[in-house]
Amino acid sequence: MQWYFVASLLTVLTSSQGILTTLSQSNGEYKYDYATVPFLAEVFKLAVSSLLLWRECKKSPLPKMTTEWKTVSLFPIPSVIYLIHNNVQFATLTYVDTSTYQIMGNLKIVTTGILFRLFLGRRLSNLQWMAIVLLAVGTTTSQVRGCGEASCDSLFSAPIQGYMLGVLSACLSALAGIYTEFLMKKNNDSLYWQNIQLYTFGTLFNMARLLADDFRGGFENGPWWQRIFNGYTITTWMVVLNLGSTGLLVSWLMKHADNIVKVYSTSMAMLLTMILSLFLFNFKPTLQLFLGIIICMMSLHMYFAPPNMLLDMPLTVKPDEEKLIEVSVDRRTLS
Amino acid sequence: MQWYFVASLLTVLTSSQGILTTLSQSNGEYKYDYATVPFLAEVFKLAVSSLLLWRECKKSPLPKMTTEWKTVSLFPIPSVIYLIHNNVQFATLTYVDTSTYQIMGNLKIVTTGILFRLFLGRRLSNLQWMAIVLLAVGTTTSQVRGCGEASCDSLFSAPIQGYMLGVLSACLSALAGIYTEFLMKKNNDSLYWQNIQLYTFGTLFNMARLLADDFRGGFENGPWWQRIFNGYTITTWMVVLNLGSTGLLVSWLMKHADNIVKVYSTSMAMLLTMILSLFLFNFKPTLQLFLGIIICMMSLHMYFAPPNMLLDMPLTVKPDEEKLIEVSVDRRTLS
Repeated sequence: MQWYFVASLLTVLTSSQGILTTLSQSNGEYKYDYATVPFLAEVFKLAVSSLLLWRECKKSPLPKMTTEWKTVSLFPIPSVIYLIHNNVQFATLTYVDTSTYQIMGNLKIVTTGILFRLFLGRRLSNLQWMAIVLLAVGTTTSQVRGCGEASCDSLFSAPIQGYMLGVLSACLSALAGIYTEFLMKKNNDSLYWQNIQLYTFGTLFNMARLLADDFRGGFENGPWWQRIFNGYTITTWMVVLNLGSTGLLVSWLMKHADNIVKVYSTSMAMLLTMILSLFLFNFKPTLQLFLGIIICMMSLHMYFAPPNMLLDMPLTVKPDEEKLIEVSVDRRTLS
Repeated sequence: MQWYFVASLLTVLTSSQGILTTLSQSNGEYKYDYATVPFLAEVFKLAVSSLLLWRECKKSPLPKMTTEWKTVSLFPIPSVIYLIHNNVQFATLTYVDTSTYQIMGNLKIVTTGILFRLFLGRRLSNLQWMAIVLLAVGTTTSQVRGCGEASCDSLFSAPIQGYMLGVLSACLSALAGIYTEFLMKKNNDSLYWQNIQLYTFGTLFNMARLLADDFRGGFENGPWWQRIFNGYTITTWMVVLNLGSTGLLVSWLMKHADNIVKVYSTSMAMLLTMILSLFLFNFKPTLQLFLGIIICMMSLHMYFAPPNMLLDMPLTVKPDEEKLIEVSVDRRTLS
């Protein structure tokens, strides 16, 4: 399977995720407990990975599986990072409004690039760095609140703690991705075996979260396992399956491609969601969405196109152009 | 004199032009006839160029001056194009509002690139084309109307004629620039001699325009030469001198650099004006201005930085990174 096929599929599924989640609400509210969705998605991913590993075990050579504790003990760490991230996110939202939080979320693209360089030691060209910054700028542009929209002027007016927590949130989110890539590429274990470890801890952490919610609510509605499917519709199940599938694709990308590919996929998904919303929910097209799409497309081309395609400058010139070319060359050497 | 010094000076002067013009108003209106400003600027440029040519004539070798009619007859053409452009601009503004017109004005950056390629036969790399599009996107982003501003939703709601005239206007504006570059580089005549021809026709066309205004007004206030300096203040004179100086710098750039350099200078000037306005006129900083500046800076670097700087990817990797690099290389060859 080629990475760009998987990345495109991830874009489509991530984009559907937002739309399905909106469609799963009735009259603008959730009739089910949203916290059960990521839990069931983890269970789904665990089941699929187990099935695939079992199939792999029937063939020869047997899949490589490291079972020593030293390696297994690294797999709960992404869940721990996400747990901290969720709490930081919650704290951030006490200082800034949701749309400012969403705008700051684009910082994650840049922090992923930085941690990719620092922790994984991957070098990027000057042009690729520019592409990453442009991707963040492009997604932000598409989100600029247009005229006539509510909650103006709040972007530069939140307390400083809000911005600091927003940056921390972007770093934690990037760190979780970078750490997962490190885990998946650390050895050549079977992807499915690595997934099983990852999702087992994911399932446990999500169960703990549901239980914590129950304790916080004083078990008013009984324990979570008694009301887990309350209010579930066919759309809710699609949200679960979709979330589980995107998780499996991300995992594949972490093993066979990298975090930057994932960041491009999810950013493109955000734009795709906005385009689809124009049709599905009758949103008005804005100039900033159009500009954001152009910027992100340029960024994509800059990052992934082969250098010779980007710089291919035919050197055959007609004699009467000589003077013009001379000026141009002169300029380049002076600069 | 190096082109980037001239280009930077042009940026500063063009930026001052907007601010000086605003400062030259009293209570938000012009106390003088604004049409006299470009006329006097043409006279100023003609005087400066004559002086410089006279100085050049005293030295040896004598400056090269083609005086045959076939060449001289090409010099009124830029003035003719500007005349048509002004009328198209006027017609466009009957269909669209000024802020939509301003947004469409950024198209000029792209049309300049296209005519640069078509008429001057100058080739640009894939990356340079992207840089030009990004420059236009960046300047447009900085102009996106924020929330709380008046005249919303007008951008996509003007009649189709308005957009077509806007595109025509962008083409004419680019054509005038491209044609001037062609004229200036056509032969190795002295720049000052070429300027004299250009500005003589410029002066004549501006005089004709003032006279036409008088005819239209039925000579109510007497002929233009009797009231040319009415309402002039020291700031108005600075506007004239500033406009004249930017004209001379543009002319120099057309001879020794090119239209793309000019387009970058004036785009950067627009951003600089917006930044200075934050301080001078107490404007509020917007997210879109900040994003626009980043995009334009990236574009500048992409267009002018030497290719080896953009693509310099150190190839020395640590052995334990081998696997990661392999994936990355694989991705590039597959794409």
